[in-house]
This record gives sequence, structure tokens and C-alpha cells, in this order.
Amino acid sequence: MHVMIMAGGSGTRFWPLSRRATPKQLLRLFGDRTMIAETVARFDGLAEPEHTLIITSDHLVDAIHRELSLPKANIIGEPSARNTAAPVGLAAIVAAARSANPEEIVCVFPADHYIRDTQGFQDAVRAAAERARRGAIVTLGVRPTQPETGYGYIEAGDESDGFFSVRSFREKPDAASARAYLNAGGFFWNAGMFFFRADVMLAEIRRQLPLLGTALDTLNHIADDPTSDAILFTQTWATLESISIDYGVMEGAGQVEVLPVDFGWSDVGHWDALPGVAETDEAGNHISGDVTAIDCGTSVIYNQSDRVLATLGVEGMVVVQTQDATLVAPRARSQEIRRIVDALSKRSDKDGLT
Amino acid sequence: MHVMIMAGGSGTRFWPLSRRATPKQLLRLFGDRTMIAETVARFDGLAEPEHTLIITSDHLVDAIHRELSLPKANIIGEPSARNTAAPVGLAAIVAAARSANPEEIVCVFPADHYIRDTQGFQDAVRAAAERARRGAIVTLGVRPTQPETGYGYIEAGDESDGFFSVRSFREKPDAASARAYLNAGGFFWNAGMFFFRADVMLAEIRRQLPLLGTALDTLNHIADDPTSDAILFTQTWATLESISIDYGVMEGAGQVEVLPVDFGWSDVGHWDALPGVAETDEAGNHISGDVTAIDCGTSVIYNQSDRVLATLGVEGMVVVQTQDATLVAPRARSQEIRRIVDALSKRSDKDGLT
Repeated sequence: MHVMIMAGGSGTRFWPLSRRATPKQLLRLFGDRTMIAETVARFDGLAEPEHTLIITSDHLVDAIHRELSLPKANIIGEPSARNTAAPVGLAAIVAAARSANPEEIVCVFPADHYIRDTQGFQDAVRAAAERARRGAIVTLGVRPTQPETGYGYIEAGDESDGFFSVRSFREKPDAASARAYLNAGGFFWNAGMFFFRADVMLAEIRRQLPLLGTALDTLNHIADDPTSDAILFTQTWATLESISIDYGVMEGAGQVEVLPVDFGWSDVGHWDALPGVAETDEAGNHISGDVTAIDCGTSVIYNQSDRVLATLGVEGMVVVQTQDATLVAPRARSQEIRRIVDALSKRSDKDGLT
Repeated sequence: MHVMIMAGGSGTRFWPLSRRATPKQLLRLFGDRTMIAETVARFDGLAEPEHTLIITSDHLVDAIHRELSLPKANIIGEPSARNTAAPVGLAAIVAAARSANPEEIVCVFPADHYIRDTQGFQDAVRAAAERARRGAIVTLGVRPTQPETGYGYIEAGDESDGFFSVRSFREKPDAASARAYLNAGGFFWNAGMFFFRADVMLAEIRRQLPLLGTALDTLNHIADDPTSDAILFTQTWATLESISIDYGVMEGAGQVEVLPVDFGWSDVGHWDALPGVAETDEAGNHISGDVTAIDCGTSVIYNQSDRVLATLGVEGMVVVQTQDATLVAPRARSQEIRRIVDALSKRSDKDGLT
């Protein structure tokens, strides 16, 4: 079995801690290890390092290589961002070529998600991979615990041996729809984790995205190490359609199934999500680094600098200080931090700050 | 006429901008000049520099001397803080000695207050000094504009030529009392500005605070330059009672009068007071330095560092970043910043940060 970890994050959502050069997958949000190192470690005993592939942005390859004990050829830098269908197709041809097995199982995972229960996760991976071996494309569907509007949903249909057919993929809903999904049952959060046989995925791509299928064919003879021919890889990559695997393949695929899971998952999409999954004090603060906090509550307070950070009476805020920048915002608005990054990235005197 | 500027502030209230070494009187809160330089400049045309005295903490003498075009001997460093009665008594003997006039007029002013209308201020000073020449101790009473609980009040009695006898001095009131004062009329904010003849003040001190009177007598022969005999000055100062001029002298003095004034005054006692007197943008923010502020309102946002400060959706907050420390607090709690300073001052690794 091959594991393909999608590590293309751009580094805006956890600004100022995350930057273009150190996006979320390279942050240590939960202890000593980076998110991507934790993601790889989560497969201990399930997949060998030589069968673990990373697809990331070109400029992050070296940083990720330093972080992980993986062969350099397993870390594939995208010359340009092409959404998720193209990387998934690439994973399929690489896995098939390296294993010399067209029916090799591939599991696709995001590099920067939080999972509380590793044992539960591994059990789900084993079951889903086994199911995929029989020809299904299998997704993991996280059982929703609140009417979350920040995730896409998977609508389940008929059940068979604990797996459900997928009736539809739903975009991030409005609040009313999210409540309806939760009340109805049978809707699961789309965590971007799925399992397939290489040949099954490639057949679906050729059928639904024929241009991508053809492009992958031109890379087939270098599939063992796609970046070994940088010119061919870059030229081919530049022609690819930028489309998501959900929209481009999964929605129209023949046999797609969802396995409901409950292993304590979060995509940790922004600062506001941290207190829900990381350690908090008795007042609900998630505090990291040397912080002088008096009478603060339900706040995220980070000091990653050698300077003093002092907060008094701060409630429901995000306060993050790094060596060169400080952010202050209400937690409820942490999804808008991109506006800060956009404003700073337009300033020529702020190179490296975004 | 001699002017005596009380510049003993300790530097906690505008932390992290203010420090022990740079308290509020040495900050540039309103433009290019420090508060103390603005205070001195406010007397242009009323008092000569050689007749302007500063009393401050010992460790601030050099910094203040660099700031002002005053003879060094006019800047008197207190070996230890002794509240206000002792400095006022010292001002009286110094002014009398230097002018060789026991009836010299002395005006006492805080170093770090804001006054909008300099012309109105100068008119009030002229009138009050003239009144003091006839033997009264005259205070300026600021006509209250809201039921402020952060100031002491002066209760006025009978009127004569625009001056009122003082019926009582009132400590900082609770909210109900403050409203009652405002509704009743005849109550004024005690701005800590007063005028007296040296001989009148010294007679009151000898009568009401005889120990202080005796101590001042021992300094009389060095009154021209009290710090010239550092040993005598320090030893004498150490014995002085620490008591305020209001409580120790004014409340029991024979002829105390108040002149109501309306020149736009604030003691700018903490960060929360700044937007009321300093420049604000259309959203009510007082912003200083390079700040990236998106959708912020009624906040004080200061960046006195070469690092980025970014705020998003911040309402009613104080956010201050200096080169070595950052503070975040609601404006409404800015009077509690001392708690931060106290916590930091207990840490041996934070020298110079308070």
C-alpha cells in the first residue's frame, strides 16, 4: 500500500506563525513534531517510509525533506499548484510504477490535520484499504458533532458491511443546511481522506478527465521519479486542468463509498480551531510560549519570540507574536486573516513576512 | 514668578511604552515633543526658563535635562519619593531663595497632563498668580464634562471676583457621587495645579506639618541649589513625612480658592484616555506607527517597533508593541496595567522591561 500525503498549504491561515516558507504542515502546533511529521508517524506499522509519498509546492521540498526520514525522490514538488485531481492522478501512476502493481492501493491524506485517536485511525485505514482492494473508491466520513459550516459534507446512501454508498458530495453549507444535515443523520464531514486501487482511479480519470489522463500517460515512463526529468514534468504540469478530485472524479465515479469514522478529527483550519483540539488552561485559553496573561479567557495566545507578550482581560481573542510580527484579532474572525496577509504581501518593504 | 513642575511619575500606566526610565512625562504622546517639554513650553511668555524648576526622581534627572533647555540646577532629583507636600515646600524655599523675595509667587504643575487651549491656560495662570499675590492659595478647578470617577473633586463655596472659596476637597468618588457632583454644579476636577506666595505656603507648612517645616529650615542655606550638598539633602529628605499637599496642607489652609477653568484638560492617566484627547481616525481609533489595521474601531493601537503589528476586527482594545514587549488589553481595563508591570518586575530575566 502507498500513502500519498497532500502538503500544498500556502501558509496564510496561521499567520504570522505560518508563512509561505513555513505553512501549517511545517508548524509544531501540537508538541514537538511538525504536523506533517505527525501525519507520517500516524502510519507507523501501516506503510513503510519508502511507500510514503509527499506532494507539495516546489519551494517546500527541501524543508519537508529535512523534517522527514523519507527518500528525497518520495517528496514531489509541484511546479505550480493544480488543485487535487492532478496530484491524485500522479500518486496513482507513481504507486503503480514503484510497486510494479497496477492494482496497488493508494491512500490519500492531508498533511496538516489533527487526529486524536491514532488506534481508531489505523483501524479505519486498514478497513478502508481492504474495501478499496475490491474496487471501490473509499472515503472516510467523520461523524459530525456540531452543525459545522466550515467543512464539506458527504451524504451516505445504502449500507453494506459498515460502508455506505455515497449519494452526494455537498459543498460547505450555510448554517441552516448544516443543522439540517446534523438532524437528519447520514451526513458526514469530508476529511479529504480516500483510498483506491491505482488502476481504478486512473480509469476514472481517463473517463472523466481525459486530458489529465493523457498528460499522466506522457509521464508514465518517469513515474518512478517524476521530477527526475524536470523539463518534461514542469511542461506537462503546466498544461493540467486545475480541478479538485471531489468535483472532477469522485462525484461522477462508479463505486464510491464512505466509511463513517469517529477518531477525533479536525482540519485545524485556523487559529479559532486550536482550543477545541489542543491543550487549554482552566479558563479555556490555549497558551504557548512565555506569556504574561492576567484574567484572560477562551483565547489563543502564542509567543514565539524572545520578547514579552502581556495580555490583560483578553476574552475570545487570538494574539500571536513572532520574532517579526504580531497579530491581534477576535477568534471569531480568524478565518479572515488572509486579508492581513494580502495587505502585507502588497508591500515591498515586508518581504518574507507573508 | 517661579514655576515648579512635578515630574515624579513612575512609568507603569503607559507600559510597555513607559518604563521606569521613561515614564509618561518623557513620552511623545502628542506629537514631536515629550509631555514635560510641552508642559514647559506652555509657560512661554509667562515664566523664564531660569525660573522653571523640575522636581523628579533622582534617576530621571539626566534624561529630563537632555529634554529641556533648563539649567541643570533647576532639575532637582528626589533621593526618594515623598508624595507632594515635601516637593511643594522645597519649591517654596528654592523660589524664595533664588528670587531673594519671600513673597515670590510659585505655580505648581504636573509634568504630564494634556491641555488643549494654551491661550486659555495662560489666561488662567495669569489670573490665579495675581490672586495668589494677595495671599490666597489658589487652585485651578476644571469644570467637569462627565461624571468622572478617576479624578478628585473640589467643592466650591462663595464667589468673589470669579474665584470661589474652597469648601472641601473630595477624593475620587464612586459613580453615584460623581453623578451627584455633576448635577449639583459647583464641583470641579482637581487638576493638581496651584499657586501661592512662598511665605504663605511655608507658614501653612510650619503650622500644619511642623516636622516638614523644620526639615526645610535645615535646607534653607542650600535652597539656591538643594542637591549641591547631596549628603545633607538625601539625609534630610529621608526623614520627611510622605503626605500629599492636598491632604497635608490645602484642606486645612486658611485662604484657599478655586478658579474654574475650561481649557480642555486631561491628566491622560492611562491608555484609555488617549482617544479622548489625541487624534483619532473615522472609526475612533488612535493609531500610531506602522500598523496594519482592518475593521478596527475605538481602539488604541501603537507600534513603536520595527516589526509588523496587524489587527483585525479589534474593538475597544489597547494594543501596544514596542521593541521588546507587547501589551493587549481592553481599553476599559487599562487602569489595571500595573498588574502586568508588577508580575514582570518580579522576574529576574525581565530587567529593564518595567
